[in-house]
Amino acid sequence: MPTPKKLSHLDATGTATMVNVGEKAVIFRRATASGRLLCAPATIRLLKKQALPKGDVLGVARIAGIQAAKRTADLIPLCHPLPLHQIQIDFKVSIRAIEISCTVETEAKTGVEMEALTGVSVAALTLYDMCKAVDKKMQISDVRVVEKIKR
Amino acid sequence: MPTPKKLSHLDATGTATMVNVGEKAVIFRRATASGRLLCAPATIRLLKKQALPKGDVLGVARIAGIQAAKRTADLIPLCHPLPLHQIQIDFKVSIRAIEISCTVETEAKTGVEMEALTGVSVAALTLYDMCKAVDKKMQISDVRVVEKIKR
Amino acid sequence: MPTPKKLSHLDATGTATMVNVGEKAVIFRRATASGRLLCAPATIRLLKKQALPKGDVLGVARIAGIQAAKRTADLIPLCHPLPLHQIQIDFKVSIRAIEISCTVETEAKTGVEMEALTGVSVAALTLYDMCKAVDKKMQISDVRVVEKIKR
Amino acid sequence: MPTPKKLSHLDATGTATMVNVGEKAVIFRRATASGRLLCAPATIRLLKKQALPKGDVLGVARIAGIQAAKRTADLIPLCHPLPLHQIQIDFKVSIRAIEISCTVETEAKTGVEMEALTGVSVAALTLYDMCKAVDKKMQISDVRVVEKIKR
Amino acid sequence: MPTPKKLSHLDATGTATMVNVGEKAVIFRRATASGRLLCAPATIRLLKKQALPKGDVLGVARIAGIQAAKRTADLIPLCHPLPLHQIQIDFKVSIRAIEISCTVETEAKTGVEMEALTGVSVAALTLYDMCKAVDKKMQISDVRVVEKIKR
Amino acid sequence: MPTPKKLSHLDATGTATMVNVGEKAVIFRRATASGRLLCAPATIRLLKKQALPKGDVLGVARIAGIQAAKRTADLIPLCHPLPLHQIQIDFKVSIRAIEISCTVETEAKTGVEMEALTGVSVAALTLYDMCKAVDKKMQISDVRVVEKIKR
Repeated sequence: MPTPKKLSHLDATGTATMVNVGEKAVIFRRATASGRLLCAPATIRLLKKQALPKGDVLGVARIAGIQAAKRTADLIPLCHPLPLHQIQIDFKVSIRAIEISCTVETEAKTGVEMEALTGVSVAALTLYDMCKAVDKKMQISDVRVVEKIKR
Repeated sequence: MPTPKKLSHLDATGTATMVNVGEKAVIFRRATASGRLLCAPATIRLLKKQALPKGDVLGVARIAGIQAAKRTADLIPLCHPLPLHQIQIDFKVSIRAIEISCTVETEAKTGVEMEALTGVSVAALTLYDMCKAVDKKMQISDVRVVEKIKR
Repeated sequence: MPTPKKLSHLDATGTATMVNVGEKAVIFRRATASGRLLCAPATIRLLKKQALPKGDVLGVARIAGIQAAKRTADLIPLCHPLPLHQIQIDFKVSIRAIEISCTVETEAKTGVEMEALTGVSVAALTLYDMCKAVDKKMQISDVRVVEKIKR
Repeated sequence: MPTPKKLSHLDATGTATMVNVGEKAVIFRRATASGRLLCAPATIRLLKKQALPKGDVLGVARIAGIQAAKRTADLIPLCHPLPLHQIQIDFKVSIRAIEISCTVETEAKTGVEMEALTGVSVAALTLYDMCKAVDKKMQISDVRVVEKIKR
Repeated sequence: MPTPKKLSHLDATGTATMVNVGEKAVIFRRATASGRLLCAPATIRLLKKQALPKGDVLGVARIAGIQAAKRTADLIPLCHPLPLHQIQIDFKVSIRAIEISCTVETEAKTGVEMEALTGVSVAALTLYDMCKAVDKKMQISDVRVVEKIKR
Repeated sequence: MPTPKKLSHLDATGTATMVNVGEKAVIFRRATASGRLLCAPATIRLLKKQALPKGDVLGVARIAGIQAAKRTADLIPLCHPLPLHQIQIDFKVSIRAIEISCTVETEAKTGVEMEALTGVSVAALTLYDMCKAVDKKMQISDVRVVEKIKR
């Protein structure tokens, strides 16, 4: 399918509108997004020493991401409210970053990449919040869709 | 002030908790965050041609970012609910990216960098949503605090 | 179908309750509501001169109305949460009023007139908010259902 | 004070923004809004017979209006979140209408007329929802500010 | 069916996750929960004299419980958002307690006992709030599932 | 101070209303509530073996309780929105129960016992949700205020 030449949310007059999904089929849809919180190596070391043994910092970020994914249509104005079958958030701590991924599954008339991206973004913001006292230079980066499936 | 050696949201047992802000002073606080949505140049050209004359795409993202900044404590589990005096979101469209900045002001016992970062992130997600039909490879990047003031 | 003689949300004891929609069919349903914000002609002239060229005032009200329509079941206690396929909000600026219409579509067990009315009402409140500094005598009026279809 | 010549929520470029209330004084503020749900006389008679003895219909609308007034900043994009000292909603049932009034009090940097108007609007929508099975021609009208005090 | 030996929300590493309900059937499901607010007999007498004739105290608690049941997935992190066909809340005032029950019905891939329990809990909290000025020793107790049906 | 003889939230006509807190002083206030989730000993053993080493089950419940305490005014209709300085939730796992306590601090015109009770209730509901697959007979009990301080 060639990339469309028109922004889907703009009508003929240039007004931003919701896309009408009434005619689309209810099918299985899955999307995975990823992103990372870039930190100083000292922040990662502190995290590994103080937070990771218990797991609570990652656990709080996971819950925040799951909750945010469920609220996607409330946060992103032109998104449709969708049922969600599963939201899974995983973390990988490397030397200079915490990698975040979020996979969302549903059977619905439209895809769930915005839910996955919202889950990653809010998990990253929550990690930022918990680490900001020790690191003023963190960045949230590379938030993107890595897989989108429908069948 | 040297950087603290301890993650502020972890108690002695490693449990993630809210920081008690009861003893902190109610003072003027301002924070500015920025970030960008990286797009293909063709996406930016389409946006400039179809969306920017009317301004609606950026307008929708601005409102989404403002609304999200007000909901920060509802999204980020260990944040405190704060009064907010102003939330301002600006955009700059360059060749390969839409740059987003969000400034938040308050008089409160704790800072508003999470509000500013949340405003940037949700504005970026909203732009992503409106452009995703024409560009599958966008990324949200460089979301960070650029200024934090208290007086 | 003759008009029922009983208030649908009251049980035999006069207690307000949710209607059980379990037995109703999932069918296509559309509702359109309209309403108007009555303003002084000077307010309309100011709006036409300062706000309408850019379109931002109407754009903000449109987004607020769409977001509110999605939150109908959260605002109106005895409404059911429904999936929504589309929410469209349009404005027409006349000499003494801004006319607002909102059309909502779904496939569900119950109709969406409350969603359409909520969209109109919150769009009107948002316009009121943005114009209230220049006009203290505005009124929101004639908020009503203009069409309701099921098939 | 002469009426301003500029829409307060538009900046120099015509962009809709939040007003910065940082410099405004924290003072006592009260606002009262009113509005009405116009119904067929038969609807009012049915309401008086079935619903008013127990009071539940008005009670549900009162709670919905109070809850909505507390959520004003979440519904109206450019409103500031405010503490609220009291929200009072009253009803008067006449021959062809249910009259609604909502009074909100606070000590804050900005007024509460949007909270009062939101309380009236959502109380009216809730009444509409409970009466819509017996009356398809109701209208919400005359939603306006009747008093605004600061001292 | 024997009771499972594994906590359903923990994955192999002990991380709390949402259960994937994608493979489960959409069937009719009903759950009833109950609970009680234990009060001093004098509180019950006051309630019977001042509040029960008009019914408003129980009416407010009923609406709060219904609204909370609709927000279950927003409150309980690992719950799925579900459509709900009906939420019914009933009260029985005895000598030392207000008994609360909540029945929720849906057609969905997973059960609604959390919705029923949330409805009971928030109705009980709302009653507590309205009675707390006269009784400092109330307790919410015996909140449990009394029936769960699927077919 | 003798116990009042009147339900504070009822006006002269028996209508439930918000209490006007405008005249009350902004002072330090703290409230602690507690409660317990009664489980079968086998559930507690399973929890101790599978969940407590990592801590995630309690961590999820803690976050849910903190988030709910922040939303108290959104859940309990006649509560006032309040700033909150700290919300702390603790657990103690005994042989037949998980004990939950929640302490909330603020400087405000009214107390925070409803916030503490809401934190306990939603933490308990979240634990219930995560354990319900292995134990159908759990109960939430003894949810009450254990300390309330103002100064």
